[in-house]
Amino acid sequence: MQMAKPPERKQWEGNYSEWFHKVIQEVPVYDMRYPVKGTGIWTPYGFKIRKGVTQIIRDELEKTGHDEVLFPLLIPDYMLGKEGEHIKDFEDEVYWVTHGGKSPLDVKLALRPTSETAIYPMFQLWINAYSDLPLKIFQIVNVFRYETKATRPMIRVREVSTFKEAHTAHATREEAEAQVKQGIEIYSTIFSKLKLPYVRTKRPEWDKFPGAEYTVAFDTVLPDGKVLQIGTVHALGQGFSKAFDIKYMKADGNYENVWQTCYGISERAIAALISAHGDDNGLVLPSEVAPVQVAVVPIVYKGKEEEVLKKCYEVRDMLVSAGLRAVVDDRKEVTPGSKYFTWEMRGAPVRIDLGPRDIEAGTAVLVRRDSLEKTTVQMAPIVGEIRKLMSGLDDALIKRSSAWMSARISEVTSVDEVKDVLNKHGGIVEAPWCGDRGCGEDLEAKVDARILGTPYGDSEECNTGIGCVNCGVTAKSTIRIARSY
Amino acid sequence: MQMAKPPERKQWEGNYSEWFHKVIQEVPVYDMRYPVKGTGIWTPYGFKIRKGVTQIIRDELEKTGHDEVLFPLLIPDYMLGKEGEHIKDFEDEVYWVTHGGKSPLDVKLALRPTSETAIYPMFQLWINAYSDLPLKIFQIVNVFRYETKATRPMIRVREVSTFKEAHTAHATREEAEAQVKQGIEIYSTIFSKLKLPYVRTKRPEWDKFPGAEYTVAFDTVLPDGKVLQIGTVHALGQGFSKAFDIKYMKADGNYENVWQTCYGISERAIAALISAHGDDNGLVLPSEVAPVQVAVVPIVYKGKEEEVLKKCYEVRDMLVSAGLRAVVDDRKEVTPGSKYFTWEMRGAPVRIDLGPRDIEAGTAVLVRRDSLEKTTVQMAPIVGEIRKLMSGLDDALIKRSSAWMSARISEVTSVDEVKDVLNKHGGIVEAPWCGDRGCGEDLEAKVDARILGTPYGDSEECNTGIGCVNCGVTAKSTIRIARSY
Repeated sequence: MQMAKPPERKQWEGNYSEWFHKVIQEVPVYDMRYPVKGTGIWTPYGFKIRKGVTQIIRDELEKTGHDEVLFPLLIPDYMLGKEGEHIKDFEDEVYWVTHGGKSPLDVKLALRPTSETAIYPMFQLWINAYSDLPLKIFQIVNVFRYETKATRPMIRVREVSTFKEAHTAHATREEAEAQVKQGIEIYSTIFSKLKLPYVRTKRPEWDKFPGAEYTVAFDTVLPDGKVLQIGTVHALGQGFSKAFDIKYMKADGNYENVWQTCYGISERAIAALISAHGDDNGLVLPSEVAPVQVAVVPIVYKGKEEEVLKKCYEVRDMLVSAGLRAVVDDRKEVTPGSKYFTWEMRGAPVRIDLGPRDIEAGTAVLVRRDSLEKTTVQMAPIVGEIRKLMSGLDDALIKRSSAWMSARISEVTSVDEVKDVLNKHGGIVEAPWCGDRGCGEDLEAKVDARILGTPYGDSEECNTGIGCVNCGVTAKSTIRIARSY
Repeated sequence: MQMAKPPERKQWEGNYSEWFHKVIQEVPVYDMRYPVKGTGIWTPYGFKIRKGVTQIIRDELEKTGHDEVLFPLLIPDYMLGKEGEHIKDFEDEVYWVTHGGKSPLDVKLALRPTSETAIYPMFQLWINAYSDLPLKIFQIVNVFRYETKATRPMIRVREVSTFKEAHTAHATREEAEAQVKQGIEIYSTIFSKLKLPYVRTKRPEWDKFPGAEYTVAFDTVLPDGKVLQIGTVHALGQGFSKAFDIKYMKADGNYENVWQTCYGISERAIAALISAHGDDNGLVLPSEVAPVQVAVVPIVYKGKEEEVLKKCYEVRDMLVSAGLRAVVDDRKEVTPGSKYFTWEMRGAPVRIDLGPRDIEAGTAVLVRRDSLEKTTVQMAPIVGEIRKLMSGLDDALIKRSSAWMSARISEVTSVDEVKDVLNKHGGIVEAPWCGDRGCGEDLEAKVDARILGTPYGDSEECNTGIGCVNCGVTAKSTIRIARSY
């Protein structure tokens, strides 16, 4: 096994937003030229990436007993309004269907901004007895938010085209609480498979999901230092089940309202995946979601065309029958150099260059996408070599992205420091906090940033006993602050 | 191998509509209690049937070079209106989004009734050179029609939840014509896999897809004798490409408008599948789309519970590892009789009854869903026996449904006969026709039925030279007439 020195790896830092737009339009992944603001088109290649990601989501949810369903898009206004907190938060950003043909509708219909109020009236019909519980369903659908702020492809959109929402109902608070934990575990697994680093944060009271008891969010840091929420898990308590009268009969013959949870994830996960791993040459995709894992590029010399192509197809067939997603780039009148460019842009984890000399020697040149390292390997054990390279790439992606993100989480103890750090390189700052909403909002205004909330999980109790970063009163917990999308 | 006499098989004829509503609600496949008229919910089991059907559609389209994509739902009014014929036909049945939050929108947005006018503006951007052609894409999405007539679950709905639409662009009329033929072949394959009988009919001029040159439809006959259109293929010519200015550069440097086709299929295919094969005991599903192919029912005697259950799980594991979708119905406090009822209702192709005596004898009892025939087989070759039963069931389904439908296609020569046949048992009547629109519409009024069109394919030329069934003028072709959904 020979190794060539990899070329210098360029980074997109400092120019992330432009880079992101360029790469998703050039691959293309997502065409943002559709003439309705805040919407876009999943291209053939983009759709395949999306399919890889949704497959991971489906697998993890099905493995844990969630059934896929499909609910209607339209929600009558009176249903959307049933849970008071919920509608208050959504009413300014709902799209309304008011006419069918030329006739005004009797009842205004909302394009779902999320589906609690579409699904829970049916839970009321579906749940009668203890044996109907737990009920655990999910759907992957489009949802709509009339965002008035500047939209941003895949990140802040008016049509969220890929919204996975899970909804569960349980007999007791304890079971619902356990489900929140399972939801969090499922999302942790999904993001690990996407090689995405994250922190889990309990959102402050004033920023939880409308109608929920509390919200735990997954946040990641994008290359520009701004935080992106990529998933949320909500404990709903009995708020919705009371509003929608969802009850089950207990062993003693009495009825009780169910306890509910819901959790959502969107194409933001795909935006984060692209942003975390990509470089100046384009996408870098973890092997599990790469539409093409191995691109075979024929290095053709005059008179050897047929022989080389034949071998390339042989190699592809061998890889495909070993379960790898492999293609031969057999475009005519396109130079090998252009083909390298194509497959680097598309983020194929491994490229194989195959020419007459390789064929004679029974070898092939493998190129790993993240490092662009070239390795010459024997043809016979090539499947194993490719798997090794892919798993090396996968490991490198999570290591690199985690290290990058860890370096952007800072502990600070003064308001000036908060400002300094956020101005210098963004990311997340952690500081001791008194827990008071007024103090929190005052702090947000002072540093022009958002309070993400308090760490969820084992670090929740840290930083107590010292003074709040803003008001000096004894701190009750750590708080996370960031500039966010 | 022993055989027991199968019980009498009850048919739902005469009471089809009630039967259909009952079975989809009881399984349940599709919950029609959602409080927006003309919409419904795919339940967990229904979603799995839907997934089986969409998987067949995806496979056939991908095999023939179509790429899956995803376009936005919302279409600005000025785009929907660009092709004159198209908008004329749809404007009365479009749902309009007029408000975002409390603000009226500058541009009214339509919920797509179909996506030509969403997709073709992007074709205009995507297609430049000959090498961009052919372009063949598809998406599976929801579309909306504000139907004012009586809605009917899965058959006449306001939200079509499962609309597969393919759109293609080509350099020449000949290539587009070949694509129409491929589209028709693809649909023929899909319906064959669903064991659905059909006729292919070229729709009359006045009933073609708005904006198309011509339309070929797939029609099947439902148990009540009424015809259901289950798929359409359209030759679009250059009408849309001129309206949307979609051009490519030819070898000589000149630009030419592309030639287009599109073809669609919806959940009506699933409604037809359920209707064609079901019986009084519930669903009967072809093996390829059955969510559960084999249901193992433990026949438990006191003291033998564990032994029997253990064997059932063993059998299931063996079946699953042989690639079959198998489950054990291990519900407690549910009698075997109720379990039979469940799996007959759900249409599992094969049931296995397994009790202590079978275990001792190394045998099992297999029950085939369509015939309810019981067969006692040896355990060792059980996988082969099950596959044989499933393929027997699949063959029986297409044979039975085809024979049933063939018996409902009648050739007639007078208007009275048309009426008689349609009144007596519905179905499709074929008669000689002069080809004149006025005569056709006169005939439709006289017999209170719809002209489906002329046979597509090899029989197109038959019945010429004799007199038109209505006006007596020399007939140019056969015409098909039916009462339809």
